[in-house]
Amino acid sequence: MPFAATVLTLYPDMFPGPLGHSLSGRALEKEIWSLETVQIRDFAADKHRSVDDTPAGGGAGMVLRPDILAKAIDHASPVSDNRPRLLMSPRGRPLDQAYVRRLSEGPGAVIVCGRFEGVDERVIEARNLIEVSIGDYVLSGGELGAMVLLDAVVRILPGVMGNRESGESESFETGLLEHPQYTRPQDFEGKAIPEILTSGDHGRIAAWRKARAEEITRARRPDLYRSYREEEE
Amino acid sequence: MPFAATVLTLYPDMFPGPLGHSLSGRALEKEIWSLETVQIRDFAADKHRSVDDTPAGGGAGMVLRPDILAKAIDHASPVSDNRPRLLMSPRGRPLDQAYVRRLSEGPGAVIVCGRFEGVDERVIEARNLIEVSIGDYVLSGGELGAMVLLDAVVRILPGVMGNRESGESESFETGLLEHPQYTRPQDFEGKAIPEILTSGDHGRIAAWRKARAEEITRARRPDLYRSYREEEE
Repeated sequence: MPFAATVLTLYPDMFPGPLGHSLSGRALEKEIWSLETVQIRDFAADKHRSVDDTPAGGGAGMVLRPDILAKAIDHASPVSDNRPRLLMSPRGRPLDQAYVRRLSEGPGAVIVCGRFEGVDERVIEARNLIEVSIGDYVLSGGELGAMVLLDAVVRILPGVMGNRESGESESFETGLLEHPQYTRPQDFEGKAIPEILTSGDHGRIAAWRKARAEEITRARRPDLYRSYREEEE
Repeated sequence: MPFAATVLTLYPDMFPGPLGHSLSGRALEKEIWSLETVQIRDFAADKHRSVDDTPAGGGAGMVLRPDILAKAIDHASPVSDNRPRLLMSPRGRPLDQAYVRRLSEGPGAVIVCGRFEGVDERVIEARNLIEVSIGDYVLSGGELGAMVLLDAVVRILPGVMGNRESGESESFETGLLEHPQYTRPQDFEGKAIPEILTSGDHGRIAAWRKARAEEITRARRPDLYRSYREEEE
C-alpha cells in the first residue's frame, strides 16, 4: 500500500506544486505515495460558500468554522480511517526527524491546513486533530507546512532515494548536524580540500567527520548537543 | 523599494508555486515584493551541465561544486548587493519569528537552495553564506525552505495583511503560543463557545485569553515558556 496523503485546504490548486518535482514528484509518479486534496469550501452551506466567521470575543482576522471543517474531515477521513489527522499550526508539537520517520512507517496522513486567524478549538478536540508545527514562525496558511511535512516523509519512504544510504548519516539521524562536505575541484580560490579526506584512510576520515559534526553541533545548536551527550552516556 | 528576493536553485520551475497564490501571490502582483530565480545549472562549464560531484573522502550522495555555485552567486549578487545571502540547510540557525521580522525590515534576500548531500564548505565560507534552517528535519532540497521563509517574511511586509493588526497578537510575537479561537455557530455538537467570550467585557476577555495562552505554552512548549517568564521578570 502506498503512503496515502489527504490534504484539506482552501487552496487545492497549490498541490502538488513543489511536491510534483524532483524526488517527491518521481515517487508520486511511481505510486510510492498518493496525494488527494479536499476543498474545504465544498462543505460550506450558504450560497456565498463562506467558511469563516469573526472570532468570538473580538479581535482581528477570521476563524475557520467548526461545523464546516468537521463535515470536510468526516468526508475525507471516516471513522474507519486509521491515518493520523494532523492540523498544521504554530501552536503544534514541533516537527522533527523522529516524528517524520514515525509518520513514514504508517499508512499515511490526513492533513488540515489552517488559514486566517485559526481554527475553532471545538473541532480540534472533537476530531482529535494533532497540531503539528514546522517551526517557530507564522505562515499565511498551513499549505506550505503540509508540503514540508510530506516532502520530509516521502523522501525516506522505501524506494524513493534509491541507492542512497536512506539518510542514516544525515543531520539529526545521528543526533548531530552533518559534518562539512567537499568535492572537486581540489583547489577552489586557493583553498584545498582538507588533506585527510584525500588520504584514503577510511578510519581516520570517519573519525575526522565525527569530530567536525560534534564541533559544529556544539557551536551552533547547544540544545541538540546536550541531548546527544546524554544519549552517548 | 519592494522586498527583492533572488532564489538560486536547480528547480526554478517550482517558483513561484505556492507563493503565487493567496496573500503572497497578491503581494507579488501588487509589487510589494519581487521574485527572481537563477538556474544554478546555467553556470556549469561542461557539456553535460553537471553541477555536482562525489564527496571527497567517500560516502553516499553528491555534493554541489563550489566553483559553479560561486559563479551563480557572483552573477545573482554582486559585491555591491547589500542583501543577506542565505543558504537553506538543516545545519543552519533555526528560523524564528524574530529573524523573519528582521529580514522583512531589510532590502530583500538572496537564497541558495541546496540539493543532494550538501554544498562544498569552501563556497559557504568564501561567499559568506548564512545557513538558515526551517526546522529539525531533512528535506529533499532547499526550495520548500526558501518558500517557507519568503511566505513568513512577505505576510508581514507593510500593506500585505491590510487591516489586520499585522500579527501582533499572534503566536511568537508575544513570546507565547496563541490562545484558542472560537466562532459561530454558538452550539457545535453540543459544545458552546466559552461564556466569557460572549460577555462583551473586553478586560475579562483579554485576561482570559492571556491566561489560556500562558497555559498552552507552558504545557506544550516549556522551552518557550521559560524564555517568556525570563522576559517578564
